[in-house]
Parts: sequence; C-alpha cells; structure tokens
Amino acid sequence: MDLSQIHRPIWPSGDNRGIQVIDQRKLPHQQVIADLFTVSDICTAIQEMYVRGAPLIGATGAYGMWIAAQDAAGTPNPTAALDTDAQTIKSARPTAVNLAWAVDRMQQVLAKVSPEEWNAVARAEADRITEEEADNCRKIGANGLTLIREIADQKHGAPVNILTHCNAGWLACIEFGTATAPIYAAHAAGIPVHVWVDETRPLNQGARLTAWELGRSGVAHTLITDNAGGHLMQHGQVDLVIVGTDRTTYTGDVANKIGTYLKALAANDNGIPFYVALPSSTFDWTLESGMQIPIEERQPDEVHEIYGRMGVETGMVRISPEATPAANPAFDVTPARLVSGFITERGICRADAASVLAMFPEKRHEKG
Amino acid sequence: MDLSQIHRPIWPSGDNRGIQVIDQRKLPHQQVIADLFTVSDICTAIQEMYVRGAPLIGATGAYGMWIAAQDAAGTPNPTAALDTDAQTIKSARPTAVNLAWAVDRMQQVLAKVSPEEWNAVARAEADRITEEEADNCRKIGANGLTLIREIADQKHGAPVNILTHCNAGWLACIEFGTATAPIYAAHAAGIPVHVWVDETRPLNQGARLTAWELGRSGVAHTLITDNAGGHLMQHGQVDLVIVGTDRTTYTGDVANKIGTYLKALAANDNGIPFYVALPSSTFDWTLESGMQIPIEERQPDEVHEIYGRMGVETGMVRISPEATPAANPAFDVTPARLVSGFITERGICRADAASVLAMFPEKRHEKG
Repeated sequence: MDLSQIHRPIWPSGDNRGIQVIDQRKLPHQQVIADLFTVSDICTAIQEMYVRGAPLIGATGAYGMWIAAQDAAGTPNPTAALDTDAQTIKSARPTAVNLAWAVDRMQQVLAKVSPEEWNAVARAEADRITEEEADNCRKIGANGLTLIREIADQKHGAPVNILTHCNAGWLACIEFGTATAPIYAAHAAGIPVHVWVDETRPLNQGARLTAWELGRSGVAHTLITDNAGGHLMQHGQVDLVIVGTDRTTYTGDVANKIGTYLKALAANDNGIPFYVALPSSTFDWTLESGMQIPIEERQPDEVHEIYGRMGVETGMVRISPEATPAANPAFDVTPARLVSGFITERGICRADAASVLAMFPEKRHEKG
Repeated sequence: MDLSQIHRPIWPSGDNRGIQVIDQRKLPHQQVIADLFTVSDICTAIQEMYVRGAPLIGATGAYGMWIAAQDAAGTPNPTAALDTDAQTIKSARPTAVNLAWAVDRMQQVLAKVSPEEWNAVARAEADRITEEEADNCRKIGANGLTLIREIADQKHGAPVNILTHCNAGWLACIEFGTATAPIYAAHAAGIPVHVWVDETRPLNQGARLTAWELGRSGVAHTLITDNAGGHLMQHGQVDLVIVGTDRTTYTGDVANKIGTYLKALAANDNGIPFYVALPSSTFDWTLESGMQIPIEERQPDEVHEIYGRMGVETGMVRISPEATPAANPAFDVTPARLVSGFITERGICRADAASVLAMFPEKRHEKG
C-alpha cells in the first residue's frame, strides 16, 4: 500500500461497514491499512496502537460507537447493548481523555433518537467529531504560528529550532496535528523552521512517525535520542518546545508520552518556552491535579523489543538480555509550573485554572 | 566464547603480544573476545567502542602505549615514534579524560628509562594503572556503601531503589565498576537493593551491559527507557541516583553519557540525592567549567540503527525512515549545582572545588 496520497489516518470504508486506518505500528518500514469492522477490531486497534494520539483515539472511539450502534439496534435491548460496548471501548486505554469524551458524546446523541435512526445519526456524529478535530488542528496551527513568528522575528531569518516529543502530528490528530500544526503553518508561511525530533522510546513514535511526516512535508528536521534534548538546550540549539498531550487538567497539569516531564525540566532550566498544543477535547474538566490521572503501564516487551528493518526483513528485535525484567509506564505528568502555556483552538493561554476557564467559560460548570 | 568465568573486560594476551578485550558492542547477544595487537587495533577498539567507560579506556590506552613502546624501541628515533603513537591514541576519543591521563603517565614513566627497558617498564606500568583502577573501584564501593546503608536504615528493610544511567560497571571499569561498586558492595553486605537500569540510547549500554552485569551477579534490577526515570522519581520509586562520569572538572561539573543531565534535573526537582562515582583519574584538574569539556559528536548511524537479535539473527536494525537526518552528541554536562556529591576512592565529598581539592590536596598545583 502506498500512503503517499493519504493525509488522514482514519476514514470510513467504501462499503460503510466500518473504518479503515493506517496501521501505525508498521511505519515507516511497511505501509499497511487495517480494516476495523467490529467493536473488537476497534478495541484491538486502540490497545495495540494501530492508532494512537489523543484526538485520533477519540475519533476511533466515535466510529467504534457507530459500529456498536449498528449492532445494538437489532438486539432486544439496544440501549443496554450499546452501553456495554461503550464501556468496553472506553476501557481500551486509560490515559487519553478524548476516548471517554468521544464515547460519552456519542451515547448522549444516540440517547435522544430511536434505535432505527442510530446508524445514520451515529455516523453523522462520528464524522462531525472527526471534522471538528481536524478543524481544531487548523486553528491550533494558526494560533501557534504567532509564537513561532515572534521567535523568527528575533532571529532575523535564522531557522527557528523547535523540539518535539512523540508524535502529535496528523497521524495522531486527523489533520496537521496539534504540536506539529504550528510548525506546518510556519513552514507554509515561509518561516524557516527546523524540528528536533525526539526518538520517543519505547515505541519510537518520533523516529518512526514524526520523522516520516515531516520528511513527507519537506520540513527540515533532525532525529535525536530522547537523551539529547537537554544538551541541545544547554547549548542554545532549541528556541521552543511544543508537545501534544493525552490529558491535561483544567488546572494546567499535562499528561503526555513518557519523557515529556524531563524535557519540560530542561526547558525550564534553560529559560526556553515550553508549550503544549491541544484541542479542548483533551482537557479534563474534573481533575484538580495531574497526579490523579491514571498512568497506563504497558507490556514490558515494548521495552525489550524494537520494531525495525534488518536487511529486507522487518520485525521485532530483542535488545536486552533474555532474563531481564522491564517496566513500561507509558505517560508522565508535567506539572503546570513547568508549562509556559497552552495552544488551543481558541488561542493561547497560561497553564492555570483561571486562564483556561477564561478561555473556555462554558466549562466552568463541568469542573470538579 | 563463554564469558561466564570472566570478571574483567581487559587482560594481556597469553603470548604477551598485546591484549584481549570483551567486544562490548556484541553483548548480550554474542560473547566475543577481540585481540588488540597493534596501535591501530587499540584505536579502533576505543573509537568503535569495543571498549568504553572512562577507566577502561584509560587502561586500554595504557596497554596501547605498551604496544607502541615495543614498536618504537626498534626505530631510529624511539622517542619521536612513541610520541606520534601517543598522540594517535589520545585522539581516539575526546571526552574521557582518563585516556589522555593514562597515555601521559605512560610517556612520563618511559621518558625516564632507555628504550631497551621500554617493553618491561611499559607493561609493568600499564598493569599498575589497571590494578590501581580496580583498587579504586573497590574503595569507591566501600565508600558508597555508607550512603546506601543510611537509606536502607531509613527504609527499615524495604529495598533501596537506585537509578543508574549507562554502564559504569565492571565492564567499564576493570572490576566492580564505579557507579555499580556501591551497589555490588551493598548486595554483598546483604542490604536489599533494586536498580532501575536506564536503557541509554543510542548504544544501549544500560539495556545491553548493565542489565547483563547485574543479572549475572544476582542483583535485582528493572530495565526502563531513558524517558521513564522522571516519572518514577515523581512517584517515590527512586531513593538514590548514582552515575559514572567520563570527565569531571575539579569545580564539580560532570560530563557523562548523554541524558545524565536530564536525570540530574529530575532528581533535583524531586529532592532525590544524585551522586557521581569516580576515581581521581577521571577528574580534570585544569578546566574551570564543564562547558569547556569537548563533547564528542558521533555517527548518526548510531541513532538510526540499533543492535539486537531478530529470531536467530543478530545485527543492526534500522528504526527510522531512510532519508531522515540525525544528530548524535555522546555526552552532556551536568552542572555542579545539581550534584549531591562525589564518591571517590578516598571518600565522599561535595561537588565544588574546595571540597574536591580538600580531598585531593596534592592536586592543588595542577589546577588551571
């Protein structure tokens, strides 16, 4: 499969039986499209990370509810059947808040109509969620562009060096991405940008996905190990850090891919702005503290084995001694005090409850 | 080759033609011994990292000077020939100060005797440097044990969780290691210890070497990605950080494997003691600031390709898209303000010039 003409990671299948996604586990060595036609397919794709990234997990969950609604409509108790599938989908991954948010929204919409209408209504709502996320990415790009332009003006034409961790690009976020949206916007506007791409062990979303995305788009970038960012910051080679997030409390604490906290510490130690790009669907309006966010512990095999290409073979490569135990926390929480600000679809705000709620006043009633 | 009975990474060959070393690039998947019989072999082994770790690089350089002395003694101008080889060996790697220190020491000793004596004198001096480093490791272990014992007493029998980065074990340091020496000493003393082993990309010295060493010795340990340490520290799962160093200024700044600085920041942010274990041969008595230490930029291929085992094949695995550029700084500098103290062969001292020079008063005249 050649993905060169594809610019979204998810779309409804031609026969309307379900959805198709890029199997992101295989990139960049293999270009594979996966069919997700059942709720079980949806959960596997989320758990096994065919799809990943908060907005994309949300969209996949929404389409999963469309599939669930089609199944449930024909059962004796459609609402109970739908509810069971909703719980199953929501439990596929614990950290990203978008999944529960999208599933809940689908349930609320379906509760208002009769099961005969579920197929059409669910499909329309899942499409709407997906388009909204794409639209949010465009707005995040436009808002974040102002930050990059300011730095570019100070640098008088020298490239703006932006460090990012993991992949919060279009592969994670429907279109443009969150963290990458301002970068793509700057590139499109003719501002010279250069991206330091953190490898992002264990699953190497930076080395595999962000490098692939930026390369396709012609954005200058350099792959580095996760260990290197602090050194580059000490030596004036990073002007700005932008990352995505899987869940951010309205009080400003940011859960994101494991290792983000270390980069935030280094940015803070070197006086470098550290921004988090997110659509409002990624805010958790109930938790007071990031320390309350459940952190997923994934399989140790992800630490022991790396996906790659050896000659013409692609597959998993064992890197550690056979008997070695490993631990694999998938996310960490960067405290608000280390975050310069949030780039959202409505604009840029500080990482504190007052600023976030001032930007999203309609959420005041939801907060915990 | 079965390395199970080997407890040093370097030894003179049986025929006295040169030395043999464990080819550490191949561990843990292959157990390979390399013959180093020429100055060229020595330089290749250092550059390509058959051997690595500051004390081991020093010992290898010392034996390299023994080989060089044998060659030079038969030439028309032995001193000039020896000097040429000395420069060649010293330039094999720029960051570790032990290499230049050992080569200089060999030259000084050889300058005092006639070329006919060079073979015997050089061999004896290289052996002496090697034994001194082994002895330093034993003393570092005994001195560091007091730190671990204090924490163990506070934990009332619960394991002391120690995080380390890279490999500063016996593979790097002749015997016991530097960072690992206090851990082995505590384990031998019956104190329960558990080690968080940072993978240490790009060359995975943690995942490949430290995990292998600790496993052989029966020390409880868990492999983690380089990204995970900050999260563990935030959650009270790290009691102590101990790392080695490739060069430390007498003013307290620590050059060590890339990524060390990030762990020092996280330890500092969470009030966790961060110690550096080193023999006095690793101090740089001339530089005032760590920012003056030359940082080696290694080949980008080390970032793109990881050594591992795929089925029965071992080899290099490509992890990134083919066209992606990469950067590969091999070390970073942790400023003294983030270092709780130094564990040396003479005892533990604070990371500042006054404390270091109080412990090594004979070095006052060497400092810059």
